Amino acid sequence: MIYVVGHKNPDTDSVCSAIVFAHLLNEWKNKGGLVKFDEEAVPVIQGEPNPETKYVLEKFGIKVPEIMTDAEGKKVALVDHSEKVQAPDNIDKAEVVAIVDHHKIGDVTTPNPILFVNLPIGSTGTVLKLLFDWTGVEIPKDLAALMLASILSDTVIFKSATTTDMDKKVSEELAKIAGIDNIQEFGIDIKSKLSDVSGLSAREIITRDFKDFDMSGNKVGVGQIEVVDLKLVENRVDELLDEMKKMKEDAGYAGIYLMLTDIMKEGTLLLAIVDDESVVEKAFGKKLENNKVWLDGVMSRKKQVVPPLENAYSS
Amino acid sequence: MIYVVGHKNPDTDSVCSAIVFAHLLNEWKNKGGLVKFDEEAVPVIQGEPNPETKYVLEKFGIKVPEIMTDAEGKKVALVDHSEKVQAPDNIDKAEVVAIVDHHKIGDVTTPNPILFVNLPIGSTGTVLKLLFDWTGVEIPKDLAALMLASILSDTVIFKSATTTDMDKKVSEELAKIAGIDNIQEFGIDIKSKLSDVSGLSAREIITRDFKDFDMSGNKVGVGQIEVVDLKLVENRVDELLDEMKKMKEDAGYAGIYLMLTDIMKEGTLLLAIVDDESVVEKAFGKKLENNKVWLDGVMSRKKQVVPPLENAYSS
Repeated sequence: MIYVVGHKNPDTDSVCSAIVFAHLLNEWKNKGGLVKFDEEAVPVIQGEPNPETKYVLEKFGIKVPEIMTDAEGKKVALVDHSEKVQAPDNIDKAEVVAIVDHHKIGDVTTPNPILFVNLPIGSTGTVLKLLFDWTGVEIPKDLAALMLASILSDTVIFKSATTTDMDKKVSEELAKIAGIDNIQEFGIDIKSKLSDVSGLSAREIITRDFKDFDMSGNKVGVGQIEVVDLKLVENRVDELLDEMKKMKEDAGYAGIYLMLTDIMKEGTLLLAIVDDESVVEKAFGKKLENNKVWLDGVMSRKKQVVPPLENAYSS
Repeated sequence: MIYVVGHKNPDTDSVCSAIVFAHLLNEWKNKGGLVKFDEEAVPVIQGEPNPETKYVLEKFGIKVPEIMTDAEGKKVALVDHSEKVQAPDNIDKAEVVAIVDHHKIGDVTTPNPILFVNLPIGSTGTVLKLLFDWTGVEIPKDLAALMLASILSDTVIFKSATTTDMDKKVSEELAKIAGIDNIQEFGIDIKSKLSDVSGLSAREIITRDFKDFDMSGNKVGVGQIEVVDLKLVENRVDELLDEMKKMKEDAGYAGIYLMLTDIMKEGTLLLAIVDDESVVEKAFGKKLENNKVWLDGVMSRKKQVVPPLENAYSS
């Protein structure tokens, strides 16, 4: 048995690629192609899939793979990573028989020659599609959809800086096979599952990805959620602002900020409950109106929000 | 500038693959394919090519690449290896931008995603031919010949246990492009250059690849040369035996053996100057005749000659 597995904290590309590569290995075996594996390949995952991945698998009638966290004594094929720290436990006591990835080259080594195909492109799904082309193995309709979902998820519907022309070209080919007419719509459909916050309380939305900073002696908190459409959270803005007020008072913040980032419009609606609203104007050159301001092109907390705020608080 | 380089002590696959991959990278750049490199790729080698490689390059009018042994501060693409110990010096201070190989996965890691294509097949030349197919870059006639030479050299004309069906299929395609009618003949032509011992003295032939062993208190020496046709050395057997006699007397050997291995006939003419000829019969089940015996199917000193000799000396 060959266990095909993606990285820890699995995302859609990692889970779908394990399923697709397991299929490719099994078919390839029968075709006597480039690489022969005598054993059956089965996809596994290192942890519960996220809501986006669950949605994708359910939509195309693919069952969620079993969880496997320890590779000791097993034959494994790695997808979407080549670093030991992201691999199952005891990877050094496993036999790695193949690697398909699109990241930096990690520290997994092998005693024997194996297939290792890593390309600097947007997703492992794209690499797998190229391997299907290479081997001549036919792509089943449902697996084409899984590869397309992988690409759209990992490239944030082609908006990530990692996107290449190859990802777009391959996506069009996969959409044809999968019978998906509108790639953009399909991408938004998928990405919306992870940005669906309807089941979360206001406090949960604010704190899901929230970081504290000390800015020139001021305690500042900045949260962020990424959504495919601001409409998914717009009707909860007042509720969010009320909750932010409570948090500010309870914990003595000089300011609490929440980035509602629209990945399609490529900008952020910044919510702010602050002692001194001029800080926001200093930082971003725009005034808050009713505790809100739209910041066009701003998507990164680390690169585009925290540094200007730190400058504004220090001046 | 991207320096495309094979392993230390370069062989034909390593040198030809550097030349071919440099061409592929440059053409690929212009086609805007899977991976874009803005800089020009140039092939380099880590040491003088062997007589086989020199012959191949000369035959197809390709000039010998420059020698480069230190990678510090350079951009490099590695072919035919992914281990630091085989790479140019200071590989940790270089930027590795691509790897194409057919060995075990080594310890080179990268901070960024790169192209890394390693396949468990007979030669890097075969992997490169598949990359041409993948990218759609046209294969020039002379480079087709170089890839074919790489495959035939590394697989010992398809006789090595590493040979796959893919190597044979790709060789046929390359032979067509290169206009080479008889692959077998071309392979023998190449391999004969390395097994051409006409310029060597008898002592040089014996000691080129010679190892001493202690077998149950007996000092035993076993040398080996591999030739494409025994005829290349048959007329020197008497001369070799005379030299072996001298060596035995000078250095107090219980036995001196020389394997004249015919890689085409897949067997070894074993020359032996020994105190006790019955040792050979015990070891191989055949008697020496005039200090010679043909051992069918025997090609490996390590696996097929040393162990039975050790058993014979110990009994």
